[in-house]
Amino acid sequence: MDASNFQQRGILVALSSPSGAGKTTLTRRLLEHSPNFMLSVSVTTRSPRPGEGEGRDYYFKSRETFEKMKEADDFLEWAKVFGNYYGTLQQPVMAALEEGRDVLFDIDWQGTQQLTQKMGEDMISIFILPPSMGELEQRLYRRSQDEESTILDRMSKAVGEISHWAEYDYVLVNEDLDKTLHKILAIIQAEKLKKSRQLGLETFVKGLMEFV
Amino acid sequence: MDASNFQQRGILVALSSPSGAGKTTLTRRLLEHSPNFMLSVSVTTRSPRPGEGEGRDYYFKSRETFEKMKEADDFLEWAKVFGNYYGTLQQPVMAALEEGRDVLFDIDWQGTQQLTQKMGEDMISIFILPPSMGELEQRLYRRSQDEESTILDRMSKAVGEISHWAEYDYVLVNEDLDKTLHKILAIIQAEKLKKSRQLGLETFVKGLMEFV
Repeated sequence: MDASNFQQRGILVALSSPSGAGKTTLTRRLLEHSPNFMLSVSVTTRSPRPGEGEGRDYYFKSRETFEKMKEADDFLEWAKVFGNYYGTLQQPVMAALEEGRDVLFDIDWQGTQQLTQKMGEDMISIFILPPSMGELEQRLYRRSQDEESTILDRMSKAVGEISHWAEYDYVLVNEDLDKTLHKILAIIQAEKLKKSRQLGLETFVKGLMEFV
Repeated sequence: MDASNFQQRGILVALSSPSGAGKTTLTRRLLEHSPNFMLSVSVTTRSPRPGEGEGRDYYFKSRETFEKMKEADDFLEWAKVFGNYYGTLQQPVMAALEEGRDVLFDIDWQGTQQLTQKMGEDMISIFILPPSMGELEQRLYRRSQDEESTILDRMSKAVGEISHWAEYDYVLVNEDLDKTLHKILAIIQAEKLKKSRQLGLETFVKGLMEFV
């Protein structure tokens, strides 16, 4: 019997970074690598961008629907950012935890703060830093055909996001995607080996002791 | 610049298990694998066994010397077990921490409790369980030419040691040495990525922000 066979409680992982630090790629690769993870899909009132799919990138809702859901306490956390609502549904997260599944949140510092307050010990938070701001700027340029003003705007948002690094449990500098992915996997593996998350341990040790 | 280049505070790792659960092999392989680790060598008043080397397995001291060291506050922790003293020297551990080196303690639950009390956040503790008591018994038989009474005595000590599993941060079932070694390495890697252990992070982020 391996520890990995124990009844386990799922783990909630918040992954934050400024735009351009590699979070989207890391999220995708983490999900490919760890079938036990599901991605938490947020609800938003903003309009879908080209290529975004309902239920894959977001659940797109009207402002009225969002506000009703908010009143019905459907959200673990929600925030209003630049006039649009964003929220994390409560029900799928609770169900995943009880089934021993893990949930990944691709979320900003505000969402992470609220989730950490609400979910306590179930939650771990990881912040991804770029190796340098020059690198970040280049990635934002390469990625888009934006006007310089938009890049500057994104850079200033990046600084705002980075300013919250110290609120996270783990902080990683993403210089190399493979190395960073393996660091994240090591963090998750270690967190799952914590005594407090291995619900089946007590029964296992009782079984050990009965032998004698 | 990689996070691994940051100024880091060393980490203290207590590894405990009942005799026969694989701790000695794991300790050796961990030290081979991680050159940043040093093994804490205990001081004892018991006599050397055949093959044991001064300063490698233990520092062998007289009872009088040990008691003087104890009064001089030379020990981080000490205990009297079956009439013999055992103690962990304070000075080398403190020096290692400040140099950013890591220290491994091959130590029982009593030593772990005292070290955890004294070293707080610098300390993590890992308990290694055998996959079954039958397996443990077989390993003890294979290892020694002991009389059955000694095996029974060791089994009862093993049960006593196992009874303290819940005082540890991490608990691992050692079914496969390689897998267990990699779990321990993942735990150590993750613990070192904790924000609180990366002393250079604040300076690094300040540097990032100044760019803008």
